[in-house]
Amino acid sequence: MTILETDVLLTRSSEAEADRQFIRRWSPRAMSGEVVTLGEIEQLVEAARWAPSCFNSQPWRFVYGLRGTPQWKPMLDLIMDMNQSWAKDAGALVAIVARTTFEHNNAPAPTHSFDTGSAWMSFALQAQSMGLVTHAMWGVEHDQAPVVLNLGEVYKLQAIVAVGRSGDKQELPQPLQDREVPSSRKAISELAFAGQLPSEPQY
Amino acid sequence: MTILETDVLLTRSSEAEADRQFIRRWSPRAMSGEVVTLGEIEQLVEAARWAPSCFNSQPWRFVYGLRGTPQWKPMLDLIMDMNQSWAKDAGALVAIVARTTFEHNNAPAPTHSFDTGSAWMSFALQAQSMGLVTHAMWGVEHDQAPVVLNLGEVYKLQAIVAVGRSGDKQELPQPLQDREVPSSRKAISELAFAGQLPSEPQY
Repeated sequence: MTILETDVLLTRSSEAEADRQFIRRWSPRAMSGEVVTLGEIEQLVEAARWAPSCFNSQPWRFVYGLRGTPQWKPMLDLIMDMNQSWAKDAGALVAIVARTTFEHNNAPAPTHSFDTGSAWMSFALQAQSMGLVTHAMWGVEHDQAPVVLNLGEVYKLQAIVAVGRSGDKQELPQPLQDREVPSSRKAISELAFAGQLPSEPQY
Repeated sequence: MTILETDVLLTRSSEAEADRQFIRRWSPRAMSGEVVTLGEIEQLVEAARWAPSCFNSQPWRFVYGLRGTPQWKPMLDLIMDMNQSWAKDAGALVAIVARTTFEHNNAPAPTHSFDTGSAWMSFALQAQSMGLVTHAMWGVEHDQAPVVLNLGEVYKLQAIVAVGRSGDKQELPQPLQDREVPSSRKAISELAFAGQLPSEPQY
């Protein structure tokens, strides 16, 4: 049973009018095991590369392993076991990497993660428009990843994204079936404030 | 003279097929001085809040100063002079802030900037769909901002965004008129790689 867009919209309530591409996007784990092609990955990168960045420095890089190619297994092995149990049915794995320094002077680039996150959102929305699903993971082997992906000193892993086609929730391991629902969000009143953040309890 | 979507698409070339919302979005400085309403800001936050984040922690916060309200001037004063010369014609200024720790255990949240960047992209694309323009700035008073915005210890400024309506390029200071063109991007072949990043010269 595949979860449909209409199901997602039923579980999430809007507080203000916004394009439904944002509200219907979520991060399913159930994927079909079908391939994702290089041409499709290039469409995702095409969308991502037009994101804004500090000095137009474009810190984002995408290292992909397509299902059925020699790069697939080493990338799948970077993912922790719990995530591997479903990410094995992705069509491609894409490591999203950020350059932590500016290319023009090698000084630290303070917005490298923020800028790369914006490119990732475009990547995810473009995927959705093509009928693909995406799920970003931080639960990966952070000691191994820089070696396997050849990141060197200046590039840092931000996430590994499973890209695939929607699969059957019943095929997931039981504990993940229960979690296979679109998540909710904080209210706008908890996120947006005039002039100042409200004071929080001190930790 | 306002720069039209068709002009943007003429200056940028696609390498792969992607939704044109990504390709036509850019960061103009020419804004009209018209107000942006609280209702509009809430629509932008609505889009942003559905972004994905690690453990669905939703680290993004939005602190806004609407033109014509008491919050406007303190936020404009946080912006460096060169940026103030055009951002003064925005309809709202929105500080995008990230919570650097998880709320459930106050441990460091390694993806706070990356996740908040993804929310920012949704914010910017939603703005575009409403006929608004956005321009994020890092060139702000980073010493003053945490005090003025009441960020405390756990929240960090990621950018201040000018949100407005398209204005006349001829009204910009002369040096900025010359820069008022959509920027280009690296080629896909410079951004996406199978399996590993290419080795770079060592610095």
